[in-house]
Amino acid sequence: MKSISAAFIMIVALLGTGSSAHAQTTQINTDYLMTVHIPTERKAIDNNTVIVNILPGGWVKGPKISGKILPPGGDWLRVMPSGALRLDVRLTIETDDGALIYMTYGGVVVMSKEAGEALGRGEVLNDKGVPYFITTPQFQTASEKYGWLNKLQGVGKMAEYKRTKDDSYVNYDIFGLR
Amino acid sequence: MKSISAAFIMIVALLGTGSSAHAQTTQINTDYLMTVHIPTERKAIDNNTVIVNILPGGWVKGPKISGKILPPGGDWLRVMPSGALRLDVRLTIETDDGALIYMTYGGVVVMSKEAGEALGRGEVLNDKGVPYFITTPQFQTASEKYGWLNKLQGVGKMAEYKRTKDDSYVNYDIFGLR
Amino acid sequence: MKSISAAFIMIVALLGTGSSAHAQTTQINTDYLMTVHIPTERKAIDNNTVIVNILPGGWVKGPKISGKILPPGGDWLRVMPSGALRLDVRLTIETDDGALIYMTYGGVVVMSKEAGEALGRGEVLNDKGVPYFITTPQFQTASEKYGWLNKLQGVGKMAEYKRTKDDSYVNYDIFGLR
Amino acid sequence: MKSISAAFIMIVALLGTGSSAHAQTTQINTDYLMTVHIPTERKAIDNNTVIVNILPGGWVKGPKISGKILPPGGDWLRVMPSGALRLDVRLTIETDDGALIYMTYGGVVVMSKEAGEALGRGEVLNDKGVPYFITTPQFQTASEKYGWLNKLQGVGKMAEYKRTKDDSYVNYDIFGLR
Repeated sequence: MKSISAAFIMIVALLGTGSSAHAQTTQINTDYLMTVHIPTERKAIDNNTVIVNILPGGWVKGPKISGKILPPGGDWLRVMPSGALRLDVRLTIETDDGALIYMTYGGVVVMSKEAGEALGRGEVLNDKGVPYFITTPQFQTASEKYGWLNKLQGVGKMAEYKRTKDDSYVNYDIFGLR
Repeated sequence: MKSISAAFIMIVALLGTGSSAHAQTTQINTDYLMTVHIPTERKAIDNNTVIVNILPGGWVKGPKISGKILPPGGDWLRVMPSGALRLDVRLTIETDDGALIYMTYGGVVVMSKEAGEALGRGEVLNDKGVPYFITTPQFQTASEKYGWLNKLQGVGKMAEYKRTKDDSYVNYDIFGLR
Repeated sequence: MKSISAAFIMIVALLGTGSSAHAQTTQINTDYLMTVHIPTERKAIDNNTVIVNILPGGWVKGPKISGKILPPGGDWLRVMPSGALRLDVRLTIETDDGALIYMTYGGVVVMSKEAGEALGRGEVLNDKGVPYFITTPQFQTASEKYGWLNKLQGVGKMAEYKRTKDDSYVNYDIFGLR
Repeated sequence: MKSISAAFIMIVALLGTGSSAHAQTTQINTDYLMTVHIPTERKAIDNNTVIVNILPGGWVKGPKISGKILPPGGDWLRVMPSGALRLDVRLTIETDDGALIYMTYGGVVVMSKEAGEALGRGEVLNDKGVPYFITTPQFQTASEKYGWLNKLQGVGKMAEYKRTKDDSYVNYDIFGLR
């Protein structure tokens, strides 16, 4: 039913000026790649920039990849005028079989008063608990085995988020987009 | 001692409810936002960097937003060692009701010999014709009406791609990720 | 007391092997490269970001290089919490003999009330008129003739700055640093 | 012939209104700020990107500032088609009196066969030993005491550079540009 109406919209668009159709003609698909665990500590530079250090102990695990996160790793968070946060993460993965993968991502995080209070009480938020927490990883590696990652734009979604004095981390699920 | 306790923690985690679960617990959802039409011309700087100028005539159209693309707009494409292209786009949208929206995106494009030849023959590729063409737009605006865009990480997928001497453009569908 | 012990540490270090000397041992030299003329128009996105479009008519001139500025060219200015502006410029030069040079730069601009008022009266500021206006250009080209630019970190200093409704531009002197 | 006509054009311009003078009218001045010591370890991702981790033990020292470098700190080096290296450094300084200063810089490094061989023999290079090693630091801090750094574009010049298996570091002198 969906594909019929999509086809109909496309026909209508093609009957128009056509060469620059302006209706949806594509769909986004996602393939689960891995889950990432990132232990963190935060330092606010000013009311515009927060630096998140990625502590030892980070890892990635998934059907085709598994490894640990090496330093230097961090997020140089920017607080936008809208109150939304923009991520700017750089980290390096060393796979269990010794390959190095450089992973970078932006992303958008929107907190809420409720989520901030829950974090303050030491609660672990999940993807329902934070209004919005999406990242867009890219990968760079010289490894032949993991070379498929070079040709992928990823998307990440927060799965768990905890922030106490002694134990702060975020877990993402990462998917390949196509 | 350290590695023993680390191993112990991991075992506990595996036995436990997953306070650091490493399996998929989230899903990506997409909402169609708009289609973007970007007329272009290309200049290769070297075998590493191509600059794509966004020509006059670009537009965006969608259920909740419609407008035109203003200069300066461009893509400062980087050719990666893997052969994949990384996009680095900056452009400004002026909506039909006068709001300014700054849109930026990275993304990954993988071409193929067949796709390159088809482009060379003047054919219009669609999302089946290029092996891979995904972008990750972010938005910045002071407009209250369009303020919801500030709080969104987008994803774009190529819908049409043409590249001849006189007529080169790309159309994307853009979706909000959640 | 503090400065005494700092001086003492410095003396000890200077007497030592010097493998991590912490006193000035180098000097910065500059070589004049060219002057750049950039006609502009500005669009404020929000109180954090201003987009400056580089209009047609821009040029560079110097002892070893002369050419014009091609689109896309712009500055995606960021207003920092301190009130200082950070530049983020991308532009392309086409030399008189047909080479393409991609030039990018950051930089720091600090305005003053007096400078803003003078601009508002249509005055042309010079490097004494704006408290601070320094840029740091880098160059990328495949041209053999201009290949020396690839191996240079530049610095630019504002020479003229005008901003009226009909005529806005900035002129920089650009120097090679060594 | 070419230089004669260029000179003629320049004379005409100087005789003109000068609203777009294209000859040097400014000069660059530098003020010594501090020396930075950065212990490092390197990981090559591919033939395009090298990641340099900043190890514990880094410091800055100067007439008005002194402190240590905190993680996360790194350089995400890019090898350009010309063979020149572009730096992309992010690090955080904690001053002796407890202020946090976020420092970022690009820069250009050009190595030579001789310099590479000297490094390989364990020699400490100085600013005469590497053909080219210039950086362009910017600073961001909420500290009132160090707030003057927010309004400064810096330049750095390599003073010492060593790279052995057990002991790798770089020392820069950093200057304020005006």
